[in-house]
Amino acid sequence: MIVVMKPGAKKEDILKVSERLVELGFKTHPIYGQEKTVIGAIGDKKALSAEAIINLPGVEKIVPIMKPYKLVSRELKETPTIIRIGGVPVGGHGLCIMAGPCAVENEEQLLLTAQAIKASGAHILRGGAFKPRTSPYAFQGLEEEGLKMLARVGEQVGLPIVTEVVDTRDVELVAEYADALQIGARNMQNFRLLREAGAAGKPVLLKRGLAATIEEWLMSAEYILDSGNPNVILCERGIRTFETATRFTLDLTAVVVVKENSHLPVIVDPSHGTGNWRLVLPMARASVAAGADGLLIEVHPDPARALCDGPQSLHPENFDRLMGELSPVALAVGRDLAPASFRETAPSPGEAARLKREAM
Amino acid sequence: MIVVMKPGAKKEDILKVSERLVELGFKTHPIYGQEKTVIGAIGDKKALSAEAIINLPGVEKIVPIMKPYKLVSRELKETPTIIRIGGVPVGGHGLCIMAGPCAVENEEQLLLTAQAIKASGAHILRGGAFKPRTSPYAFQGLEEEGLKMLARVGEQVGLPIVTEVVDTRDVELVAEYADALQIGARNMQNFRLLREAGAAGKPVLLKRGLAATIEEWLMSAEYILDSGNPNVILCERGIRTFETATRFTLDLTAVVVVKENSHLPVIVDPSHGTGNWRLVLPMARASVAAGADGLLIEVHPDPARALCDGPQSLHPENFDRLMGELSPVALAVGRDLAPASFRETAPSPGEAARLKREAM
Amino acid sequence: MIVVMKPGAKKEDILKVSERLVELGFKTHPIYGQEKTVIGAIGDKKALSAEAIINLPGVEKIVPIMKPYKLVSRELKETPTIIRIGGVPVGGHGLCIMAGPCAVENEEQLLLTAQAIKASGAHILRGGAFKPRTSPYAFQGLEEEGLKMLARVGEQVGLPIVTEVVDTRDVELVAEYADALQIGARNMQNFRLLREAGAAGKPVLLKRGLAATIEEWLMSAEYILDSGNPNVILCERGIRTFETATRFTLDLTAVVVVKENSHLPVIVDPSHGTGNWRLVLPMARASVAAGADGLLIEVHPDPARALCDGPQSLHPENFDRLMGELSPVALAVGRDLAPASFRETAPSPGEAARLKREAM
Amino acid sequence: MIVVMKPGAKKEDILKVSERLVELGFKTHPIYGQEKTVIGAIGDKKALSAEAIINLPGVEKIVPIMKPYKLVSRELKETPTIIRIGGVPVGGHGLCIMAGPCAVENEEQLLLTAQAIKASGAHILRGGAFKPRTSPYAFQGLEEEGLKMLARVGEQVGLPIVTEVVDTRDVELVAEYADALQIGARNMQNFRLLREAGAAGKPVLLKRGLAATIEEWLMSAEYILDSGNPNVILCERGIRTFETATRFTLDLTAVVVVKENSHLPVIVDPSHGTGNWRLVLPMARASVAAGADGLLIEVHPDPARALCDGPQSLHPENFDRLMGELSPVALAVGRDLAPASFRETAPSPGEAARLKREAM
Repeated sequence: MIVVMKPGAKKEDILKVSERLVELGFKTHPIYGQEKTVIGAIGDKKALSAEAIINLPGVEKIVPIMKPYKLVSRELKETPTIIRIGGVPVGGHGLCIMAGPCAVENEEQLLLTAQAIKASGAHILRGGAFKPRTSPYAFQGLEEEGLKMLARVGEQVGLPIVTEVVDTRDVELVAEYADALQIGARNMQNFRLLREAGAAGKPVLLKRGLAATIEEWLMSAEYILDSGNPNVILCERGIRTFETATRFTLDLTAVVVVKENSHLPVIVDPSHGTGNWRLVLPMARASVAAGADGLLIEVHPDPARALCDGPQSLHPENFDRLMGELSPVALAVGRDLAPASFRETAPSPGEAARLKREAM
Repeated sequence: MIVVMKPGAKKEDILKVSERLVELGFKTHPIYGQEKTVIGAIGDKKALSAEAIINLPGVEKIVPIMKPYKLVSRELKETPTIIRIGGVPVGGHGLCIMAGPCAVENEEQLLLTAQAIKASGAHILRGGAFKPRTSPYAFQGLEEEGLKMLARVGEQVGLPIVTEVVDTRDVELVAEYADALQIGARNMQNFRLLREAGAAGKPVLLKRGLAATIEEWLMSAEYILDSGNPNVILCERGIRTFETATRFTLDLTAVVVVKENSHLPVIVDPSHGTGNWRLVLPMARASVAAGADGLLIEVHPDPARALCDGPQSLHPENFDRLMGELSPVALAVGRDLAPASFRETAPSPGEAARLKREAM
Repeated sequence: MIVVMKPGAKKEDILKVSERLVELGFKTHPIYGQEKTVIGAIGDKKALSAEAIINLPGVEKIVPIMKPYKLVSRELKETPTIIRIGGVPVGGHGLCIMAGPCAVENEEQLLLTAQAIKASGAHILRGGAFKPRTSPYAFQGLEEEGLKMLARVGEQVGLPIVTEVVDTRDVELVAEYADALQIGARNMQNFRLLREAGAAGKPVLLKRGLAATIEEWLMSAEYILDSGNPNVILCERGIRTFETATRFTLDLTAVVVVKENSHLPVIVDPSHGTGNWRLVLPMARASVAAGADGLLIEVHPDPARALCDGPQSLHPENFDRLMGELSPVALAVGRDLAPASFRETAPSPGEAARLKREAM
Repeated sequence: MIVVMKPGAKKEDILKVSERLVELGFKTHPIYGQEKTVIGAIGDKKALSAEAIINLPGVEKIVPIMKPYKLVSRELKETPTIIRIGGVPVGGHGLCIMAGPCAVENEEQLLLTAQAIKASGAHILRGGAFKPRTSPYAFQGLEEEGLKMLARVGEQVGLPIVTEVVDTRDVELVAEYADALQIGARNMQNFRLLREAGAAGKPVLLKRGLAATIEEWLMSAEYILDSGNPNVILCERGIRTFETATRFTLDLTAVVVVKENSHLPVIVDPSHGTGNWRLVLPMARASVAAGADGLLIEVHPDPARALCDGPQSLHPENFDRLMGELSPVALAVGRDLAPASFRETAPSPGEAARLKREAM
């Protein structure tokens, strides 16, 4: 941590700040410039509670030097983590494609979609049973009934399932049926839900909040790892900006920044990220070219009648076209869309505990 | 709802869209321009599920005409709603000042703060027992122990208390101790929490999400009213923008826009809105001048040692100065900071039910 | 244009609005809903001056139906426009790669860079002689001396050159030396400069403003086309958002949205878009996969000593690697990086005049 | 400047960075932490060209310590600067109210407006002769004819005038007629225009760019002071955010932040800042309560027929009401709206030169 003193800071102010830093367990190293003094403070572990010293007289600003996350960082673990959802690896050589309807509406709709995406080469079935909706008057999901449909259809078609959980009270229930739990963008900083999902033992798909910095997103993943669950997949799904031509602004550079700073896999949701099915295909290609480990795509057998997110849902025919166009791009960047079963083996089970031990 | 067709839309496309609109219960009124056809669709109640018709051939865009909220709107209830927190009115002639520490740290800290703010003229004590923190390694609050301290100190000093709830499982517990429940910015679209808080019977202080539009904020309030609780106070606390000189960008215009569109009271939190105690005083004055019904201010007896949000907490002396400077501004806009007990009487108890009946 | 009346609008208000619309040359079509009346107004040409009728009593909002741009739109010209910079086509089958230093520093630096990028397969040399810098104390460019170096080096190495113009008074001078004029992000709404550049007869590379919507960007291109110059290339270079991990947020979806709405070619500048040379390569790949017609890349022979934008400049070796990795991605999306001379022929010269005639 | 090295940085990397810093004229002070080394570099004057050392092996990030502006800073000049526009002081005890139409349309409109605002107590007449418009098809202003009308009407009514200049070629012309030159938001980083306006000898009203940080805004003011003109008035006019309920988001906290960091006066334009005349009055009150030195307000005798910005223009009656409501708020914060002539005397003329000498 670096404490920058104001130009006119008095000697006694500088002394007082140093004393407080020592009291908090830091070693201090003042550097006297012509106009300003800065104090280097070594021993950043308590930095989180040290921000309050900005209130001491003469302090201009505080600059943290250490990253606030540990368990998710590349500095802790250099090799990329591969996570398995019902046997399907995410984060290795192969790309993982998750697809399905925004909301589970009925078993027929779900089955039709699942069969279609399986035929096109998708690896995982997604579908919402608990739907967080902006309006209290919109369709809120089939809840447990929807979970059961997901489990039945997943088994019938042979696809693991991922579905969203929105309430700490439902985590256990959802974990019973799902192969992976999704935490939605609006819950990215619902810290209790992160802890519960972390404790449930299933892989967690953590979407980026729509106004979350990359650092905050990684801090939310840190909550899950800190709860004993190393299996977190990050999902970029667009951030909120001034641009209104698209529903959100898909931040593909975030994929690269996350992979530089973290060992966790990152996928992209171009359906929410654009809000418009015509934009999904090119942005899916761009996501893979940027280095994403997979995609989350909304597919509906009749988008014009979808109860949720129709405008951004692909018809199965267009999803099939997407898979076709994706394959050469994957190969061009040294990845593939091959059947999941031919891929890498899972990480050893004790890794969570070890990672945590090492980080502390 | 207005459906705008593309310039080259064929007659059969226009016909198909009209048919679907009729099928959804709308009456249609096509207007044929030189280049484009637009179809007016009357009967907007199902508009929420109609957005998917954007997928029909020839449709360019859909423009909603009706506001998506009902119960919170001025169109339903013209007169401003006055809400009582433990007897203190919010939304009437007098301004309501809520103050206290970000986090309850111990009983001494809380008591000192409560006595100081009471002496300066504050009306309600705030303090966090459950703290949503970006980092899993930061102080997370004293939980139930903190609630008990709040209740004891509030009673001792004679101030109603407001405190945050972050988990559906805690709503009942928090409602036992608190006079009002706070829903934080990061939970503004935690819809389950909104419903639980709505059902708990205590007034709800709903903070604006840091990337929430005013419309989305009102929709979240609508969730609470739709759960049977008409006592919602909105709180502007800064939005996230590109500016880094302040923690957030306080959007004071939102106060006026909300009051134009809704009958609910609106207060402002300049502590979070700026992130810097030196900016709190002028922005508190500006909030009142803009028309806010009250303020939420962080006060700590020793900000440089606060466990949470020290940089934006006022020392009691500075809070006292704030109250002194606020009074003439309140008078200048026809409001006052007079003792709460001399103010307006509460709304009749059956209002919630009636409002809801009328809205449907 | 659709005029939405307030719920309580009186008959005389509706009448008055209709009268004003007729007076402005519109035909009116009122639609009476249960709660609101909307008035469809046909004849949108004067819509720009009609926004003021929002001030008439009873008017709630005005919804434009027509797009505000004509000459740049796909609706006017369906086929993509191919533009030639010194013989090199932009917008056709082949991708156009422009590269070079942020600022021309001296002839040796420029020549080294030009030779290196040419050897790696770049098609156009970029370099700044007039530099718009945030600080008045930063290097502002070599001005005319820099232009001369660009011209000499371009000819020597056999690459057309593109360089920025920042002042209406310099347009003629820059056009003398450059094969294309660049309008920078900070000048995207310097409308006088747009008109002068439009009149200079050379192709114009128009960067997106850092807070410009896609529609505003196209409107700025419309200024240039309206000045008689149909040769505009759009360049996405990142927008300003709350994210601080990157210098800007590269909005690759904008490439697809622009291509849907306009016939003009679009390239991407991942150097400014990310601000970090390590992010340039993956985002260059993603740009091509999204459908960009080319790239603008900063290359410097010694980035650690660059006078401008060093952190985002590629060393020639890394640029060479970029070109190598780009080629398979280009092929995967049906494009190539082949020598420019084997590509499409130029558009017929009279197109500008014809386009403008048709649009009016 | 602080250079933060990566956790795994080698000794030779640290040595190389130190050598480069010394070569650039810095004194270096390395601090060795457990995980990271940081190097304090004293002598920040060349910091601007030092950012490129981020490219050296082992460097993680660079943290500037010194502010990039000098002449505009409070550190250089502690007392607030008072600037005179045609004899009217801006920045002293009294508030300066500038009002008038967005665009000069004809002499009658201008005269009516000028007489009305003068009668209501405004101090300066504003009006646009050169209009930067998003669309090439919108009214672009009366140009020199408009300047002449402004000068005539200003003299007739007895109000100094401020008007925008948009092209370096027009600076001399506009300076002939106007008492102060306005630089619009879209030209805030048109650095050539800043320099020309700085050299013209008249006070400059510098609007904040719609995506400009406060620091960038101050850097643009620095350009003008560096050109020898100390008379710069800053004007907050709203920034671009995700919120669509208002045209821009008025950032009133910026007023306080600027006044903390700079000695220059700051005014607010709530007309552009909100885009809606009904929001202008409350936000004008809030601006004054926040500490603004004045206001810029759009007034039009018939807003529903205005050629430009009608939706945000006040009718003279509403402007009169605004002035009436503003007065008590001004008094409440220790300011007033009294006639300008009773106010402070101007700063001594040689101040510009002295300021610049001292800063270097």
